[in-house]
Amino acid sequence: MNNQLDKILISSSQPEWHARLREIHAAVKSATYFEDGSDEDKQLDNILKKVSGRGGDAAITEFTENFDGAMLPSENFRVAQKDLAKARKGIDPILLKSIHQAIENVLKYQTEIFIGNKNTHSGIKYTPIERVGICVPGASAPLPSTVIMTAVPAQVAGVKEIVVVSPPRYKGSIHPVILGICYELGIDEIYRIGGAQAVAALAFGTQTIKPVNKIVGPGNQWVQMAKRKVFGIVDIDSIAGPSEVLIIANDKANPAWVAADMLSQVEHSPGSALVFTDSENIAQKILEELKIQIGRLSRKDSTNRCLLKYGAIITFENMEQVVKQTNFFAAEHLQIQCGAQSKAIAREVKNAGAIFIGDYSPVAVGDYWAGPSHTLPTGMTAKFFSPLSANDFIKSTSIIEYNKEQLAESAADIIRLAEAEGLDAHAKSVKIRQQD
Amino acid sequence: MNNQLDKILISSSQPEWHARLREIHAAVKSATYFEDGSDEDKQLDNILKKVSGRGGDAAITEFTENFDGAMLPSENFRVAQKDLAKARKGIDPILLKSIHQAIENVLKYQTEIFIGNKNTHSGIKYTPIERVGICVPGASAPLPSTVIMTAVPAQVAGVKEIVVVSPPRYKGSIHPVILGICYELGIDEIYRIGGAQAVAALAFGTQTIKPVNKIVGPGNQWVQMAKRKVFGIVDIDSIAGPSEVLIIANDKANPAWVAADMLSQVEHSPGSALVFTDSENIAQKILEELKIQIGRLSRKDSTNRCLLKYGAIITFENMEQVVKQTNFFAAEHLQIQCGAQSKAIAREVKNAGAIFIGDYSPVAVGDYWAGPSHTLPTGMTAKFFSPLSANDFIKSTSIIEYNKEQLAESAADIIRLAEAEGLDAHAKSVKIRQQD
Repeated sequence: MNNQLDKILISSSQPEWHARLREIHAAVKSATYFEDGSDEDKQLDNILKKVSGRGGDAAITEFTENFDGAMLPSENFRVAQKDLAKARKGIDPILLKSIHQAIENVLKYQTEIFIGNKNTHSGIKYTPIERVGICVPGASAPLPSTVIMTAVPAQVAGVKEIVVVSPPRYKGSIHPVILGICYELGIDEIYRIGGAQAVAALAFGTQTIKPVNKIVGPGNQWVQMAKRKVFGIVDIDSIAGPSEVLIIANDKANPAWVAADMLSQVEHSPGSALVFTDSENIAQKILEELKIQIGRLSRKDSTNRCLLKYGAIITFENMEQVVKQTNFFAAEHLQIQCGAQSKAIAREVKNAGAIFIGDYSPVAVGDYWAGPSHTLPTGMTAKFFSPLSANDFIKSTSIIEYNKEQLAESAADIIRLAEAEGLDAHAKSVKIRQQD
Repeated sequence: MNNQLDKILISSSQPEWHARLREIHAAVKSATYFEDGSDEDKQLDNILKKVSGRGGDAAITEFTENFDGAMLPSENFRVAQKDLAKARKGIDPILLKSIHQAIENVLKYQTEIFIGNKNTHSGIKYTPIERVGICVPGASAPLPSTVIMTAVPAQVAGVKEIVVVSPPRYKGSIHPVILGICYELGIDEIYRIGGAQAVAALAFGTQTIKPVNKIVGPGNQWVQMAKRKVFGIVDIDSIAGPSEVLIIANDKANPAWVAADMLSQVEHSPGSALVFTDSENIAQKILEELKIQIGRLSRKDSTNRCLLKYGAIITFENMEQVVKQTNFFAAEHLQIQCGAQSKAIAREVKNAGAIFIGDYSPVAVGDYWAGPSHTLPTGMTAKFFSPLSANDFIKSTSIIEYNKEQLAESAADIIRLAEAEGLDAHAKSVKIRQQD
């Protein structure tokens, strides 16, 4: 039954390998973006307009009923403090211990890479962003780790006001583990709203929700496209599409592990999974392992479909070609399973969200545990975007302080440069200070 | 004749002061944004669609003829190397010396604040963005300093490919000082195209122009709105509106200098100029000085109009109120002219693009000379955006490397967290590595 999957095995000597990558990239793009002027785009504009205009809270209630099927008057947007405490109590103590350690790991890593506390230059100062909104998915897959991976970096940066929005499930509730983690982190401003309407509420504010300065976190296409629209009104982290993994494997790789890693990404549904290798032999073995392991999954049909749409195992002539294409593809998650060579290959990689080096670093280590945020740039945007970190929750201010002598010394140059641009009043603002 | 200007003098005890600030902010916003779905917005979509689709070069040629009045076949988009050398030779040697020193100042400052060369953490690596596009205004006001303030930070970061676009003037030429500075900096990929079509070409590429990873630099509303639309396809620096200055002055300030500083900002036309003070007396004197100095300007009518639309001198009850409103307004340029108190006040400021401390630090010092980029966040976006710097031309990659023992030690926790989110394949990717 699974011979269909054979088509994801491609050699770079076959002309179609390039088309296959383009196809996957196009599929990823269309799962991320609405076309400007399309029906969805117009509907999104309408949501933003209604929430930002007179609609406000009433518009949020309307959209929450339509999209989430929950009847939610504005006085019920916010989760009550007692419900947070209750949710925290309900968490299995063993799970809570794991959560505590995950928080500690993230806190340690983010504090170490934070630049805001290391600056000594008098010409620049760093300040935390005052108020930040975090989108936490809730409907199809509740991801409590999202709270840890977004809120802890913000706390390390010194953000004072952190607001969490998460869409209501049946009867308007939010997954209790999400609420419990918020309680643990001292976050008490949580709204049971989601989708584009939550992004609009965070960006523009409503009668009951104060606007924020930055919106971060994952979400479906509506959330991401709404973030795109409000960029500039607020800052956003990035525009995230389907999750993706690229695995570089040579003949030292364990094909069963590589196959398991591919499946763990495809599980995000949609999620894309690629293997780049220099070995026909290992490529073949990974495919065989995939077929075996898919058979054991509960959701094998959807996984199969996802692999056919977003998967490929491509054999290149040599590792140099592999690295070149890896830099071109700029994957969100890059695993390198090439035995002792793995580290040297990692050094050659310029574009990737996160690199997982060696056989014992599956993506799940980064998703939950190691410390770097799992909010990573997708869809080739690792060429210019970075993983979310504490450094995204500060902004800088330039400091310029000239005294009388310094200005006198530079005055002629500054005046000359201003006049070359025809900006006379700029020149005059310097000249007038030379007359006393 | 200038009694009209009296209306910009407001006391915070008058109820209209707040409305006046809101009015200015709204004017700034509407000079920055197109409304979604408006005619301009649709026209912009059309430009982007035509350039990114089959149109490519031909669309660029068409729009350049329509908007810039220059007939430019694609083989003439790029400026020839010999024209760069010629432009460089044509620069007045005294001006060139000033340009050299300005470049050196920027280089020094940007190198000092650059974080990419200071990282020693094994869990993160910084890489320069490979290819960057810079928009340099050219039509109404050629701003050669823009090249210095954007390209030098990119070079400090290690960006290999820097592309400059600047709209053609009459007969398709670019201001020779812009070209000469490019030559000085070793930038040889310059296209004489501008507007939304240039942004589209940089983001999507055409037959003759290779796409970039990030687009920075100032420009009119079309350029800014086009940058907004392509954000995500590429990174952008920010969405910049009219330039603005806020001056905090107490009774130690020199009213003539404050007035000159306001006029130097308004000269950008549109440019906004505010004074916040705790002294009715100084407010009155600044207004009188404004009236005198405007009379001496060549463009007094347009300056007057601009001040009426975007200007205000507001007296608050005390300096605490001034600082509070300053943090709310988050100005692009903030000057503090409060004698010996200036530095202490600067420490209280959280939100500003650049702070100019003391009597001898007019904005022109930052525009041309001191080192920090003059590309700064406008329109209250200093609450979350930063001045352009070398740090904007790198991106980071997280590095995760666990060995067998480390994974074994954390496996139970990671599996527990994955299963709590219902992501079984994630859990399995860890479990499978515990079986050998």
